[in-house]
Amino acid sequence: MEDRYSLKLKPIGIIHSPYKNTGEAPYQGDKSEGISQIEVFKEFEEGLKDIEGFSHIIVIYWFHESQGYHLLVKTPWDDILHGLFTTRSPHRPCPLGLTVVELLSREKNVLIVKGLDAIEGTPLLDIKPYIPGVDERSIIKLGWLEGKLRKERS
Amino acid sequence: MEDRYSLKLKPIGIIHSPYKNTGEAPYQGDKSEGISQIEVFKEFEEGLKDIEGFSHIIVIYWFHESQGYHLLVKTPWDDILHGLFTTRSPHRPCPLGLTVVELLSREKNVLIVKGLDAIEGTPLLDIKPYIPGVDERSIIKLGWLEGKLRKERS
Repeated sequence: MEDRYSLKLKPIGIIHSPYKNTGEAPYQGDKSEGISQIEVFKEFEEGLKDIEGFSHIIVIYWFHESQGYHLLVKTPWDDILHGLFTTRSPHRPCPLGLTVVELLSREKNVLIVKGLDAIEGTPLLDIKPYIPGVDERSIIKLGWLEGKLRKERS
Repeated sequence: MEDRYSLKLKPIGIIHSPYKNTGEAPYQGDKSEGISQIEVFKEFEEGLKDIEGFSHIIVIYWFHESQGYHLLVKTPWDDILHGLFTTRSPHRPCPLGLTVVELLSREKNVLIVKGLDAIEGTPLLDIKPYIPGVDERSIIKLGWLEGKLRKERS
């Protein structure tokens, strides 16, 4: 039996979204044109210093409406069972969501962003700068997603 | 006072790395040429189905050696204090690490990857497919990092 100790996290903020529930949220962040407010709790505001210089940030959050998971899942893209870790399903052992969003502006401890697919009330866990030299890779094989998402982008 | 309830996570695996401690680890994932083994606990192995079709995956892990944090930090890139959330410092309120890595091969429940800057024994939290159409953004302002990381890439 593996050592499955618990790790504890406390949210650093809360996400206010035009999507009030999971039914309203888009499948993936890049399909969301909605404007969201990321409220960073006041005690962490200093950590946002100069963030307005960045056009894009990585937002990590808690899928708070996710309950349980299956290791094989169907997605909106086809009718085949895929390994959970080859999908972006919100139903995961560690229900961590990740979206790269456009940072439109900042008002004190609130970031106004575009493209965040998290729903209203989502607990915010972390914000990181999006850095192409670090976060992008150029030689890509997309597995079962090949031809599905790429097509949509062009 | 904000609602700062605790969220609990259980690791889904463990990372075996050539970097035995934080002093040996590179600053950022893309500077790492080291080969790491991501051991996904057996109970989650089914969730890896067909992952070998993907050349790149997003690895989310726990900075287990991180203790405390400061909201303003200096980085290896310059001598100026920056807002924590504009840096990739491992010392964060929620100590979540995120690296896009190249998936070289899979042996049952173990993924062999290149470019993972996590150190030996790091708890694994999640694996997601890296999808350029979802995870890449083309109009980028890099704030205080402008000219620093980009230069290195070209």
